[in-house]
Amino acid sequence: MKVAILGASTTKFGELWNVSPRDLVSQVVKNTLDESDRSIKEVQGVFVGNMLSGILGQQEHIGAFFAEELGLTCAGMKIEGACSSGGLAMHTGIMAILSGLYETVLVVGVEKMTDYKPEEVASALMGAGSDGEREAGATFPALYAMMARAHMDAYGTTESDMAHVSVKNHFHASLNSNAQFPFTITVEQVLHSPKISSPLKLLDCSPISDGASAVLLSSNNSSTAKNHVYVEASSVATDALGLAQRKSLTSLQSTIFASKKAYSMAGVGPHDIDVAEVHDCFSIAEIIAMEDLGFCAVGAGGAYVSSGCTRLGKGSLAINTSGGLKACGHPVGATGVKQIVEVYQQLKGSAGKKQVREAKVGLTHNVGGSGATAVVHILKK
Amino acid sequence: MKVAILGASTTKFGELWNVSPRDLVSQVVKNTLDESDRSIKEVQGVFVGNMLSGILGQQEHIGAFFAEELGLTCAGMKIEGACSSGGLAMHTGIMAILSGLYETVLVVGVEKMTDYKPEEVASALMGAGSDGEREAGATFPALYAMMARAHMDAYGTTESDMAHVSVKNHFHASLNSNAQFPFTITVEQVLHSPKISSPLKLLDCSPISDGASAVLLSSNNSSTAKNHVYVEASSVATDALGLAQRKSLTSLQSTIFASKKAYSMAGVGPHDIDVAEVHDCFSIAEIIAMEDLGFCAVGAGGAYVSSGCTRLGKGSLAINTSGGLKACGHPVGATGVKQIVEVYQQLKGSAGKKQVREAKVGLTHNVGGSGATAVVHILKK
Repeated sequence: MKVAILGASTTKFGELWNVSPRDLVSQVVKNTLDESDRSIKEVQGVFVGNMLSGILGQQEHIGAFFAEELGLTCAGMKIEGACSSGGLAMHTGIMAILSGLYETVLVVGVEKMTDYKPEEVASALMGAGSDGEREAGATFPALYAMMARAHMDAYGTTESDMAHVSVKNHFHASLNSNAQFPFTITVEQVLHSPKISSPLKLLDCSPISDGASAVLLSSNNSSTAKNHVYVEASSVATDALGLAQRKSLTSLQSTIFASKKAYSMAGVGPHDIDVAEVHDCFSIAEIIAMEDLGFCAVGAGGAYVSSGCTRLGKGSLAINTSGGLKACGHPVGATGVKQIVEVYQQLKGSAGKKQVREAKVGLTHNVGGSGATAVVHILKK
Repeated sequence: MKVAILGASTTKFGELWNVSPRDLVSQVVKNTLDESDRSIKEVQGVFVGNMLSGILGQQEHIGAFFAEELGLTCAGMKIEGACSSGGLAMHTGIMAILSGLYETVLVVGVEKMTDYKPEEVASALMGAGSDGEREAGATFPALYAMMARAHMDAYGTTESDMAHVSVKNHFHASLNSNAQFPFTITVEQVLHSPKISSPLKLLDCSPISDGASAVLLSSNNSSTAKNHVYVEASSVATDALGLAQRKSLTSLQSTIFASKKAYSMAGVGPHDIDVAEVHDCFSIAEIIAMEDLGFCAVGAGGAYVSSGCTRLGKGSLAINTSGGLKACGHPVGATGVKQIVEVYQQLKGSAGKKQVREAKVGLTHNVGGSGATAVVHILKK
């Protein structure tokens, strides 16, 4: 497997009321191409990760929509898998290159969420859930709250452990000018923030965001730049949509399956990873991800994150240096692509104030819904 | 390029009020697997073509949704490109196999449209159009009517020419037990049917339909069956979403680009094609497709179709033996996959009453919106 990432960039994430999806994509693609030494004319396919353009924006056919915006007549298509749409678009772009049908392609993740009423967005997001959960009115905070409670009951994980996830990710975001919330918070602030769905509080939850991210992939790495980043593994697995149909509430089978396969493809293990972007849609999700990805023992995720060892500069593995979904923001279709952008920048050594020293191997972990889809990528320089 | 189609099948298309999307997909996948000698356990990926599950059904994440229904934990994702979603899902499934990341995958196209009010469906379908067209209230019949008028003005194409497309496709559908409208009609009936958007009349227009189709693809063709069908080319191209931004109203640049590339990949020309399923969402679309695909000269499409030479048993090329979108039906996400199923059956010699004699090379042509996306596949036995 040899797919080179020639360029990668992201817009600022946040409440971007003054720009359209077209603006976001034009800007992020321009920046991505500028960074590589390629021109738009070399792009043979555009793979767009997006979830809500139809439900919220009444606009489908956005592969052709953005191809037109970019002045292209090449292949364009939308790939959707709820909050893992960006990761799935990346997987599709990689398949495109490895298939030999394409030499150079753009992977774009984009979502515009803040133009709509919060209740409309909450309802639209339930399009990722199971029939039973939708009928029961169980929104995603409620579903993750059940997982959190199950993890607390099974392993003694505490609300303070979860708070440490948000505190760390806000610290990282404070070093990231593209983050939606570039400021620090304290454990006390998390614990005293308004309850959303107990035990999850406001500061345990990722926000509603706008943003776009893009990656330029190629099988042709003849470039003036020398220190390319390569995709070494790309893997997808699924599980039941609804929690009631799963074997476990304290782990995601999809993450376990996808990561095992990815480690095998890349010939590395969890201990080889220097930097990872994981899907912290809620603080408990990062704790569970630490276990499912093999970074710590099963049940030890709470203690692992609250030890501080996954904070930038504190241990051998930095988690969510972008600020994660919690503090960098979570425009759902963009998130999986932004994770690639962050790890790419870390491996290139261009991550600025949030640079992980001597990062050589990175991982991304993007989840759809409450865990029915997981997408894992491993990158190396 | 060597991707084998090991099985392919379709449900009946029509107003299927008593079955859910889950039912449709379960049924069509069971039939597809039964036809091949593979079990569901061998499936490593499910690529779902669908347009409207979000806008109409408020359900996204249907890759995982159907993977769960099929008892799978492998990769699942939705691919969307308006009415070309099925063709794009096929393209993605082919990339999956050629990439080496997957050995055996399912491509599923599905749409459930008749559970909703016609005005809701018409509005949802405009999600495939351009901003300006939506603001102007120009629905798809209006857009294709403009193309029809332009073709009449430029080349002398007549309403009678267009009527011959519908008459032929209904004749083919009368031989197809899975067709929505399995009965014949006359040119007079077409010409006297109610005007929808002049010059297009009711019987120039494809219907709103429910249905699902599936194809099993594999790089491993060691099977007890011997006469496999292979995918020899898969190509996608795009153009501007809106008619006003295009160079021509009498041809689709997307079809021209995609078919030229496909012919080159497969090492064949238009004269080598024995059977083709083309995107006749409106009768004029089949006339334009004849020209864009190189089956007749530019401007000669009207005379070509009204000569009757594309009717089963009449010439060297049979077009839309399934009945096409017009008479077999048009569940938008399923259509591009059903086209593959029909050509597969023709090449296998299992097309029953509608069998084309000694069919060896087949083509499918699937269009999104008013032509912003075109997907062309070439199959051989």
